[in-house]
Amino acid sequence: MPTYKAPARDARFIINEVLRIEQYADLPGFDAATPDLVETVLDEAGKFAAEVWAPLNLPGDQEGCTRHPDGSVTAPTGFKDAYQQYVEAGWGTLGMPAEFGGQGLPHVLGFAVEEFLCAANQSLAMYPGLTSGAVSALLTKGSAEQQALYLPKMVSGEWTGTMNLTEPQCGTDLGLIRTRAVPQMDGSYAITGTKIFISAGEHDLSENIIHLVLAKTPDAPDSTKGISLFVVPKILVNPDGSLGARNAVSCGSIEHKMGIHGNATCVMNYDGATGYMVGEENKGLAAMFIMMNAARLGVGIQGVAQADVAYQNGVSYAAERRQGRALTGPAEPGEKADPLFVHPDVRRMLMDAKAFTEGARALALWCGLLVDLSHLAATEEERQAADDLLGLLTPVIKGYGTDKGYDVATAMQQIWGGHGYIAENGMEQFVRDARIAMIYEGANGVQAMDLVGRKLPAHMGRAIQTFFAVVDRECSDARGDNRLADVAAKLEKANGELKAATMWFMQNGMANPNNAGAGAHHYMHIMGIVSLGLMWLRMARTAAAALDAGSGDAAYYQAKLTTARFFAERYAPDAGALRRKIEGGAEAVMALPLEAFATA
Amino acid sequence: MPTYKAPARDARFIINEVLRIEQYADLPGFDAATPDLVETVLDEAGKFAAEVWAPLNLPGDQEGCTRHPDGSVTAPTGFKDAYQQYVEAGWGTLGMPAEFGGQGLPHVLGFAVEEFLCAANQSLAMYPGLTSGAVSALLTKGSAEQQALYLPKMVSGEWTGTMNLTEPQCGTDLGLIRTRAVPQMDGSYAITGTKIFISAGEHDLSENIIHLVLAKTPDAPDSTKGISLFVVPKILVNPDGSLGARNAVSCGSIEHKMGIHGNATCVMNYDGATGYMVGEENKGLAAMFIMMNAARLGVGIQGVAQADVAYQNGVSYAAERRQGRALTGPAEPGEKADPLFVHPDVRRMLMDAKAFTEGARALALWCGLLVDLSHLAATEEERQAADDLLGLLTPVIKGYGTDKGYDVATAMQQIWGGHGYIAENGMEQFVRDARIAMIYEGANGVQAMDLVGRKLPAHMGRAIQTFFAVVDRECSDARGDNRLADVAAKLEKANGELKAATMWFMQNGMANPNNAGAGAHHYMHIMGIVSLGLMWLRMARTAAAALDAGSGDAAYYQAKLTTARFFAERYAPDAGALRRKIEGGAEAVMALPLEAFATA
Repeated sequence: MPTYKAPARDARFIINEVLRIEQYADLPGFDAATPDLVETVLDEAGKFAAEVWAPLNLPGDQEGCTRHPDGSVTAPTGFKDAYQQYVEAGWGTLGMPAEFGGQGLPHVLGFAVEEFLCAANQSLAMYPGLTSGAVSALLTKGSAEQQALYLPKMVSGEWTGTMNLTEPQCGTDLGLIRTRAVPQMDGSYAITGTKIFISAGEHDLSENIIHLVLAKTPDAPDSTKGISLFVVPKILVNPDGSLGARNAVSCGSIEHKMGIHGNATCVMNYDGATGYMVGEENKGLAAMFIMMNAARLGVGIQGVAQADVAYQNGVSYAAERRQGRALTGPAEPGEKADPLFVHPDVRRMLMDAKAFTEGARALALWCGLLVDLSHLAATEEERQAADDLLGLLTPVIKGYGTDKGYDVATAMQQIWGGHGYIAENGMEQFVRDARIAMIYEGANGVQAMDLVGRKLPAHMGRAIQTFFAVVDRECSDARGDNRLADVAAKLEKANGELKAATMWFMQNGMANPNNAGAGAHHYMHIMGIVSLGLMWLRMARTAAAALDAGSGDAAYYQAKLTTARFFAERYAPDAGALRRKIEGGAEAVMALPLEAFATA
Repeated sequence: MPTYKAPARDARFIINEVLRIEQYADLPGFDAATPDLVETVLDEAGKFAAEVWAPLNLPGDQEGCTRHPDGSVTAPTGFKDAYQQYVEAGWGTLGMPAEFGGQGLPHVLGFAVEEFLCAANQSLAMYPGLTSGAVSALLTKGSAEQQALYLPKMVSGEWTGTMNLTEPQCGTDLGLIRTRAVPQMDGSYAITGTKIFISAGEHDLSENIIHLVLAKTPDAPDSTKGISLFVVPKILVNPDGSLGARNAVSCGSIEHKMGIHGNATCVMNYDGATGYMVGEENKGLAAMFIMMNAARLGVGIQGVAQADVAYQNGVSYAAERRQGRALTGPAEPGEKADPLFVHPDVRRMLMDAKAFTEGARALALWCGLLVDLSHLAATEEERQAADDLLGLLTPVIKGYGTDKGYDVATAMQQIWGGHGYIAENGMEQFVRDARIAMIYEGANGVQAMDLVGRKLPAHMGRAIQTFFAVVDRECSDARGDNRLADVAAKLEKANGELKAATMWFMQNGMANPNNAGAGAHHYMHIMGIVSLGLMWLRMARTAAAALDAGSGDAAYYQAKLTTARFFAERYAPDAGALRRKIEGGAEAVMALPLEAFATA
């Protein structure tokens, strides 16, 4: 059975030492987030994730969820209790608004805890996983009455939230939605339609489930401009907050999936269910995107999380399993064989995983800080810059983070050889669970188009120019330190490739938008490399300073410098290759007619 | 439910038009392989694979295998009958030796049929999958008596063969084998030990199973130099060929695996089972490697096969599923949305899959031809050159072919969005089934070390020099045709990166073998890119000539030229990035101690 230990020290390094969130102590919420509190929260949350949630991961995969004839759904054995403990400990309330009972701590801290929980048990983490996004949507667009009615119990975790977009004929293209919302005399709406792939759509963990549902009112335009958002509770809530009648929404079936077996992925049938409009009519998509953007960051974190737990188990197997001899001569001559750890190709995979996981963790936590700063920073200019960078990086952490998270999980399974293919060893579960993150909340191709088609050109490229300036400045600052100079130089080169690719899109995307589309995925990956490179430069710089200051834990900081070097040597070169692929353009990509793809 | 159509036209293009096997008509077996016969075999085998085997693939995954309390194993419903039809049609006997009842046709043709069968149903194809390797081992190393006793029924398919290497403590490192073989008075051996991960170790498809087993005789050296090979039939065979008593070998359990659920992966217990030594004592590894090399080519073919069936279903979904609009404006304004096929990122994935699948098919079939030429070519020099290239390319088709086959299967699943994650749609099965090919018959890291540590330096680099010369010559020949010049130029550049990487290993691998180990996997991938590039140049050249000759099917040949261009634009650039990674060397890869990998 695989094991998990939360990387609390590493998260603390990023939050306290690299991002130095103490410097924001004058912002609301940050005042409470002292280095000591950060350490305590990370340690305790890490223990909880490892001790309470992780042991249920493999059994939950094997048992799966059960839908009963009455439409009720039971999560795997132990999930309900483990969720209850999570609610009681308040792990879900860290970043939630204080006015509705949350702890109001910075998102950057909440993101770290979210990673631990996802790594320990992704299926279980997905039950409350969409609640915070639903809370954000209601906070921003809901009426005061809706907020008062739903938010306190959603914040506490007594109720969970879901996101209902997809229908059988409609995934990415939300203009195709058919679910109807018919206004009723009392101001509510009767919601009728079928939603599919609803994560945690029905389960036994919480006493109520608050569905946020996209639907069309009778006279709505037949496009994405005709979509409204509704809150549809599983059990209707009386004005005094008590539970009322069962609403006409039910789970028609649960899906058989490649992975995340412990989470109930539901077909939800709305049969004239009572719903209440959130925000303005026909402006539902904008409201849903508040939730979607939060969810995309969460999915990016899942990519990091699955990579990390797979990495930990790759390391332990490499340390224990003996097979063959070091190329440089027996490392442990007294044993019949050396541990796998001596083999450079195994070490290459472990270093690759380490470089990704720690780098992507830093990126995710930086994004968490940007969420905070985009709302709380003192000046409009700072808030704007944070929001620009966050918008730019969201598709990167989601798209690149989950593509690469899956690759890392696959590589860690590879270290286990044939034993990695055996279900009981748990490595293959990490791969299957990691796979979904590339698909949901906007498939990674959609992320790439969001990045290239929407985020790049917005405000005349303001966000990407900000990003370039940050990278250039930090590279320039690092040049004088010989421990950092090579990392900075290779990052600068990769950033140059990103600039060249951006320029190429500007010059060729107008003439033919397919030129942008055919290179978007490659561009997202260059951006991922440069973003992680920036994180590695920051971490290396922090580590160098800590070594200079004679901080304890020198081996820890030295490892950061070595891993930064590895990243520069083994990740950065891909940026140039990706740029050249982009410059190939759309011609050969789009030239062939459908018939040419038919097997003959 | 996914569908499959065998690419018979494409295999015919490679065999008859690109490789032009007619030119070898004076060699044994090739005389019968006329263009017409090739076409007939491919068409009929393709129909058989698609109509009889493919429909059992998804149900076989869902049902899995059953081990009964008496140790017998039942394959999924329908497998036994489908195997019987295969035996009766003689599809397994194509490349088998005529003296033992085979058809004695060229391996290049047999390889094409093997791809069809693996694509249709990998789990089913694995039951007879190791028989041909076992036949090769017995043909080369077995006594005349052993050959007469076992080969006819193995060739016919009435009996299947297995390969028993792995033990719980021993995978790659065969020196760790513990299974004992104690000589008996009658010249046989009593075999005792436990073998794991034995594909098709026990099943109900054939009347007997012939296990080839590695074991150690009592006084054998405690290393790979002390391993002998034994033939251990499930049911003992009387001298007259009739079946005798049940041997003391049994299936202790079958594994729960990530994929290939339809194939029984067995723990095999040998309790003093009667075995007969094959070849010389302590020389078992060399004998087993005859089988292993055949198996590695077969696994490479599995990579191509899973990529192809996934690709076919990616294409059909992209054609049918409507979502969003073309970036250049609605392609089908009368419909509410355009098919996925219009989106450049979808098309990029389809072209990537097409470029890999068709290119890797050509490489696999070229390897099939090299198998033939290494045995049959008229001169020792030609046989040597074929054998050199085959040895070099075997780890490439196995390692690169399965790494990339898995990537392609994953990308085709991605096209299906959320529906790709649902078991009933079958796309996720292709990914799970493709995953094993990267692991078994030598994990891909082992392939990389075989390539770099063994195949490169052998005979002072004779094989790689032959390969360079072939690529250089074909690039040079193509330079004058403007339809080929750019493909040739980009291939030449990639080949230059391969040469530089080879040189770097020569200069740095001696001083520290970890420099070779840390870059071996990257090197294998450059070699894969150059090998597939060579195939694309050949196919483009053939297509250009066919167009010049005014052959029918112009669209088919035109698509080859376009896909060759895509390959040059989108695959070749990685060669340079991989070379730079290799040149990073072992330092950062090997610098950190085990403690630095511990989660903190």
